Amino acid sequence: MIITGNIKKARQICKRHRKKSKRIGFIPTMGALHEGHMSLVNKARKECDFVVASIFVNPLQFGPAEDLTRYPRDFGKDEKRLKTAGVDLLFYPKASVMYPAGFSTYVQEASLSKELCGKYRPNHFKGVCTVLAKLFNIIGPDIAYFGQKDHQQSQIVKKIISDLNYDIKIKVLPIVREKGRLAMSSRNAYLSVPERAKSTCLYEALCLASELIKKGERNPQKISAGMRKVVKTKKNTKIDYIEIVDAKTLNKINKISGKVLIAMAVYIGKTRLIDNIILNVKK
Amino acid sequence: MIITGNIKKARQICKRHRKKSKRIGFIPTMGALHEGHMSLVNKARKECDFVVASIFVNPLQFGPAEDLTRYPRDFGKDEKRLKTAGVDLLFYPKASVMYPAGFSTYVQEASLSKELCGKYRPNHFKGVCTVLAKLFNIIGPDIAYFGQKDHQQSQIVKKIISDLNYDIKIKVLPIVREKGRLAMSSRNAYLSVPERAKSTCLYEALCLASELIKKGERNPQKISAGMRKVVKTKKNTKIDYIEIVDAKTLNKINKISGKVLIAMAVYIGKTRLIDNIILNVKK
Repeated sequence: MIITGNIKKARQICKRHRKKSKRIGFIPTMGALHEGHMSLVNKARKECDFVVASIFVNPLQFGPAEDLTRYPRDFGKDEKRLKTAGVDLLFYPKASVMYPAGFSTYVQEASLSKELCGKYRPNHFKGVCTVLAKLFNIIGPDIAYFGQKDHQQSQIVKKIISDLNYDIKIKVLPIVREKGRLAMSSRNAYLSVPERAKSTCLYEALCLASELIKKGERNPQKISAGMRKVVKTKKNTKIDYIEIVDAKTLNKINKISGKVLIAMAVYIGKTRLIDNIILNVKK
Repeated sequence: MIITGNIKKARQICKRHRKKSKRIGFIPTMGALHEGHMSLVNKARKECDFVVASIFVNPLQFGPAEDLTRYPRDFGKDEKRLKTAGVDLLFYPKASVMYPAGFSTYVQEASLSKELCGKYRPNHFKGVCTVLAKLFNIIGPDIAYFGQKDHQQSQIVKKIISDLNYDIKIKVLPIVREKGRLAMSSRNAYLSVPERAKSTCLYEALCLASELIKKGERNPQKISAGMRKVVKTKKNTKIDYIEIVDAKTLNKINKISGKVLIAMAVYIGKTRLIDNIILNVKK
């Protein structure tokens, strides 16, 4: 596995493989890798000739009051996992390389980005879109892999790929869960033992929603009210949102029908967790 | 010369040439081609293996009160000129192909775009940057050619290329002038015969500035005051701006020194014309 933080070098290596018609798979990450990330790497290894992963804790996607400085970092461990999984190139740039002094260009998606997490993290997706445009231009992948846990992010990425005519296919893989069914996330490392026990309430709420819909409930308000109750049984939790929306447009729906996203963001203590399920409900 | 308005087809053709290590030159235009455009095409023909031009009157870069609908269009004539000049591929998409319903992604440069024309055309450069990001992603050129008449635009393009890590070289070629020294522009077609006579005041003002500097004047205010006088001798003119700035940062300067841009935007009747000169003044 080649490791570089040099943009030119990463670009040259990828360019060489592209010219040989090698299929390039790309997994952009912020490191602190877990099984969710590794499922993307493994899929890319199966589908592509040349697998590139990036580790970059992108300052542009953190709000001023968010957890940029304390975001978990463990390069040594990440490096080993990626090497063992057969990654060919690890791009690991410094923030000063990605955003040199005077940096002033931004990529912004103006519709999907305003929904769900966008309401609570106002410049988050602008930061995500900007860094991804940069990474896509450096690596030039054929396929980029994302996790369904960040469903909104993957929808936004698909939109910028389509709107800006990037020649990249986006693949979204299922959420990987811990034993207690908590969705894997680098931020789970923040949770204390009692918080970790509480954090199961997210998945429990999603399961309740799923059950209610199976039983015929079609009123989103009733479902989200039930979900809220599940979360509120746990102390020291704060709900940012629990929403039931069209899985593609992320617009609120009045009746459960078609491809539906049930998404939530909940603070367990000071740790903000997100989770979701997508259901295909017959019309 | 292949002509297509199909994004996939244009992309496939360029991709094929890129894989063969052909050097792709690209000249993005809004059509109504003049000698200024053709100088870019001729340069690309000399320097590149495969020359692509685009004609697209980009609605996104026009303000609501601007001249989108009456902007000059003459595809038949443009096509002939480009064919004669040896262009290999002409990309000529419809607006509905470039901006399908629900389009929501924008590329914005937030510093240089606020200066000069940016003050008078608030969303102009956002439109320019967005369409160029799209065109760059479709064509994938090695070199893209721009004219110095739009100096601010070419500086902004260089900035987004650098900030977003596009693997493209930007070349800027000198302003081509008509016999009366009016800078060539598609918008010159709007000018009546008396307006065309008046329009020489832009270049006259620039020449005055150049002379004053040669004679040792280093005070930008004094120079621009002189330039204003030149323009104001002509009736029915309105100055948007006459500015003397650092040619790279576009920031105002207090003393003429180094690489200096003298730029102006003036209405002759209802037609907004821009012009500039760049001087290298010994420190």
